[in-house]
Amino acid sequence: MTTTGGLAHIRPTATDGQPGGLFVGVDVGGSKIAVLVVDAALDVCSRHTIPTSVGEPDEAAGQIASAIDTALAGARASIRDVRAIGVGVPGRVDPATGVVSLAVNLGWHRLPLRERLEAVLGVPVAIENDVRAAAAGILDRGTLGDVRDFIYLSVGTGISAGVVIDGAVHRGTRGLAGEIGHIVVDADGPVCPCGLRGCLETIASGPAIARAAGESRTAADVYAAAAAGDATATAVVDRAGAALARAIHALVMTYDVERIVLGGGVSRAGATFLDPIVRELDAMRAASELATDMLPADVVAVSPDGGDVGTWGGISIARALVSAVEGTQRPEEVVAREVNG
Amino acid sequence: MTTTGGLAHIRPTATDGQPGGLFVGVDVGGSKIAVLVVDAALDVCSRHTIPTSVGEPDEAAGQIASAIDTALAGARASIRDVRAIGVGVPGRVDPATGVVSLAVNLGWHRLPLRERLEAVLGVPVAIENDVRAAAAGILDRGTLGDVRDFIYLSVGTGISAGVVIDGAVHRGTRGLAGEIGHIVVDADGPVCPCGLRGCLETIASGPAIARAAGESRTAADVYAAAAAGDATATAVVDRAGAALARAIHALVMTYDVERIVLGGGVSRAGATFLDPIVRELDAMRAASELATDMLPADVVAVSPDGGDVGTWGGISIARALVSAVEGTQRPEEVVAREVNG
Repeated sequence: MTTTGGLAHIRPTATDGQPGGLFVGVDVGGSKIAVLVVDAALDVCSRHTIPTSVGEPDEAAGQIASAIDTALAGARASIRDVRAIGVGVPGRVDPATGVVSLAVNLGWHRLPLRERLEAVLGVPVAIENDVRAAAAGILDRGTLGDVRDFIYLSVGTGISAGVVIDGAVHRGTRGLAGEIGHIVVDADGPVCPCGLRGCLETIASGPAIARAAGESRTAADVYAAAAAGDATATAVVDRAGAALARAIHALVMTYDVERIVLGGGVSRAGATFLDPIVRELDAMRAASELATDMLPADVVAVSPDGGDVGTWGGISIARALVSAVEGTQRPEEVVAREVNG
Repeated sequence: MTTTGGLAHIRPTATDGQPGGLFVGVDVGGSKIAVLVVDAALDVCSRHTIPTSVGEPDEAAGQIASAIDTALAGARASIRDVRAIGVGVPGRVDPATGVVSLAVNLGWHRLPLRERLEAVLGVPVAIENDVRAAAAGILDRGTLGDVRDFIYLSVGTGISAGVVIDGAVHRGTRGLAGEIGHIVVDADGPVCPCGLRGCLETIASGPAIARAAGESRTAADVYAAAAAGDATATAVVDRAGAALARAIHALVMTYDVERIVLGGGVSRAGATFLDPIVRELDAMRAASELATDMLPADVVAVSPDGGDVGTWGGISIARALVSAVEGTQRPEEVVAREVNG
């Protein structure tokens, strides 16, 4: 590697421009970094997960690169076999520059992550907001059949939504569409780190659930206690579920989407997570014909990809990067390849 | 007129297919039907408004046609000078069939309004949801300069939003995007006609404001009393303003639009309507850096078209209809016209 300035300067890898190269998807979360390696046929080659060192932006690229190397070793491959890498980051991202302008839960501020990763790895890298990448992945893989209007709602350290409208990912004017964790759902609720009172995240995020249970437990502990019948834990998860159901209702009423796909760390509590949401949706349906129309029985689904939804999102944006680069080739190059290929 | 089945069967008007024909925009509201007539240069020829006879769907087409005739007479023109008519209706509309499937405040259910109007008037008619038409009109006329992501938020008998994303009107999967009047803003609030508790409309719509003041007053009376210092009225409009501000915040956080344009009958109370909204937005900005980022000073604007925003919406969909029809002509016809024209 001699330069880090852009895709044009990236040294070709062993499989550059050829079918058969590997794709790497990375999901950077508040607690862990997950890596998925797939081949050109999208068959899974390997997975690897490491804990995130929060607040060390200078080490971020090295940490991610090391996780990728380990994942590739697990697939008996090396970085020279990789065609492109896609990284989802929980925060405000400019995909055009690859700069993470703000990722509060990671302590990152104006981090040129793409440039740093390309410098370390020598492979084209695409960066995107994590839930938007996940939504693109769900769309790309056809997980929802012919559904073209849906929202991926991630409930974890934060709460946010990746929105797909008519088969295209919606960004918004500042790239912040779907930042619904800070919608006020209870004007008299707890003060949120953002400064407002009663934001959705103060009631239904992982840290909020842990805090509301009043002990040094994790959200997973609280859901486990609720599943075992603990009254305090049940009250906390019921309140979170009701708030999420109202947020789901609000998203359907604003965007008029066909499906809300639930994911994120908190969603992995399974039925104990989902049941209070479904109960509140049922109560809304029982009270209102309009709600019944807008919230059909299949409106909510838990992501079938489970913990992989974020890394598949990374795969999706890596593939989109390759398509975009190929799409900007000069016409005569394409013609030459077609004639000679 | 010999048939009512579709555009292809409409008898040509005096100016059919020629530039120079008039366009008519109609805004059907819960209390009045407003008509605007403009020429091909979009200069206003005349306006006319009549009260709506609610609950008489069979007379709807005749009533609208009569209002159009009066407006045309005011412009010293007749229906033969009209190129196309666009009608905005407050309800669920299928623009492809021109059927109003449900307009609760008008008492209309499965009304084939386009077919009936075309039968009476013999001119091509387009039907659209009223706020979506209004949003299309704002977009079309360039009222907001280069803003391509905005929401027209109408506060009147009902509350709903017409959404423009990246310069295109957003419909949603069932054509119900922006039906935010029934988002729950106060789970312990009054029961809404829709069946849920604390919908935005139960707090901030015209009827809700009139009802909350506890006397037989209109919303306009309540705003006037608040402007004159009446304490009860002030409390009611302050509560409505705070709820609208939170709805505006929620819309910005979900859609990430650049501007929210306020309109509708209630908005015509002017400063007494706007001030409580701005105060609540200011309070959110003072509390939260994120809210300050997302809610810049110019995020809210009152529609510069005032009471005309709905009828300009009608003009916009009438013009879109003409463009669509011209766009579907057989290529040889277009070529022939270009060669001969």
